[in-house]
Amino acid sequence: MSGSLFVVGLGPGSPGALTPDATAALQAADALYGYGPYLARVAERPGQTRHPSDNREEGARAAAALRHAADGARVALLSGGDPGVFAMAAAVCEQIESGDDAWRSLDVTIVPGVTAMLAVAARVGAPLGHDFCAISLSDNLKPWDVVERRLDGAASGGFVIALYNPISSARPWQLGAAFERLRRHLPASTPTVFGRAVGRADEKVVVTSLGAADPASADMATLIIVGSTFTRVIERPGLTPLVYTPRSVASS
Amino acid sequence: MSGSLFVVGLGPGSPGALTPDATAALQAADALYGYGPYLARVAERPGQTRHPSDNREEGARAAAALRHAADGARVALLSGGDPGVFAMAAAVCEQIESGDDAWRSLDVTIVPGVTAMLAVAARVGAPLGHDFCAISLSDNLKPWDVVERRLDGAASGGFVIALYNPISSARPWQLGAAFERLRRHLPASTPTVFGRAVGRADEKVVVTSLGAADPASADMATLIIVGSTFTRVIERPGLTPLVYTPRSVASS
Repeated sequence: MSGSLFVVGLGPGSPGALTPDATAALQAADALYGYGPYLARVAERPGQTRHPSDNREEGARAAAALRHAADGARVALLSGGDPGVFAMAAAVCEQIESGDDAWRSLDVTIVPGVTAMLAVAARVGAPLGHDFCAISLSDNLKPWDVVERRLDGAASGGFVIALYNPISSARPWQLGAAFERLRRHLPASTPTVFGRAVGRADEKVVVTSLGAADPASADMATLIIVGSTFTRVIERPGLTPLVYTPRSVASS
Repeated sequence: MSGSLFVVGLGPGSPGALTPDATAALQAADALYGYGPYLARVAERPGQTRHPSDNREEGARAAAALRHAADGARVALLSGGDPGVFAMAAAVCEQIESGDDAWRSLDVTIVPGVTAMLAVAARVGAPLGHDFCAISLSDNLKPWDVVERRLDGAASGGFVIALYNPISSARPWQLGAAFERLRRHLPASTPTVFGRAVGRADEKVVVTSLGAADPASADMATLIIVGSTFTRVIERPGLTPLVYTPRSVASS
């Protein structure tokens, strides 16, 4: 007897951004696994067990969910945003590749969601309207010089840059170093957006510039978008400005 | 009197991937604007007018929707996937910046959605599990040498690459040229995914390699993901293989 594993993207956190597929997977599950604060977003249901775990335990959490599914249960593993973007889907694949052979036969479904950069971008206009990239600033899993090379390449290549995992108590200096690095390539006026908890009660979205960007304004839940030299700000009377990157690049 | 404009992301196309916020915005609208096939996905409602337009008329469509909203209507402008990713949100911002002053006072809301690369990635595992970028191959709006430089930078920098707008009848050779360009940097074995119409009746997702990638397998609705040198394929007995990019990069 074999169960199934659903890796479910919760989106940015508001119920209005949770897809029907995600809601259905959560409701049908026998067991829910996830980082505690994500589990807390899902209403309790009789007969459904809940298995919270701490942050930074992705590998162990994925393995526990796979083990439970292999025992025949229908398991949902929660992920913030989209599971495929610096989240649980890769952790599950890593465990399937290295773990119990039986896990390769499991029915695994990834349920995509609205990842943070899309939610933050939507709040301010269309900063990701042209070619862009997503870089995790966490150097827990890769050397910092790799991060620096990617920041250099992305900024000099004209990509808008979304920065995931910008800062944490264990990684206090990386975001400041990243801003310094990006200032080598981009003017101080480059539009820069700090966004956190979009759609939730504690939402905070700030439009600033690369020159004025302050790492202390970010926390673990913040997603940062640094524009390209093409990114523009439209002032609006009585409204917040719009930030967007035009679809066109003129011939040089 | 001033109305409002909602730029609504329809996601990859299945009802299960349409967010409640998007559904609400569509239902509350007085008028719907969009590319014909996107409009056809939304059920008709009495009292709601429908304004289909052709593909490649994004600027004119955005202006028409803004004009209608400025007349006092509640207007929804439809976008495939997420409006902020190579879609209608940037077109709307461009029109607001260059158009009628009154458009700057309009209440504009972007409703994010699941963009194609997230939907395709979810179907095969977690190919976007590490740093990645999104590049539009359309050279209608930017010179081809800019596309080439970005492909070079992304592939040599270790980014997984999502290719949007890979091919059309007016742009028949660009995807083949892009694959040739990427083969300069990446081994022929690099996992490559073709995905179209995820969640719809005509869904087709194929896992191949960069060496075997055939541009003729793609059409306008296809999203292509080209892995990095770290991207892996896990074979599974009786199931489709999983494609993923590990979260870790070892020190070099």
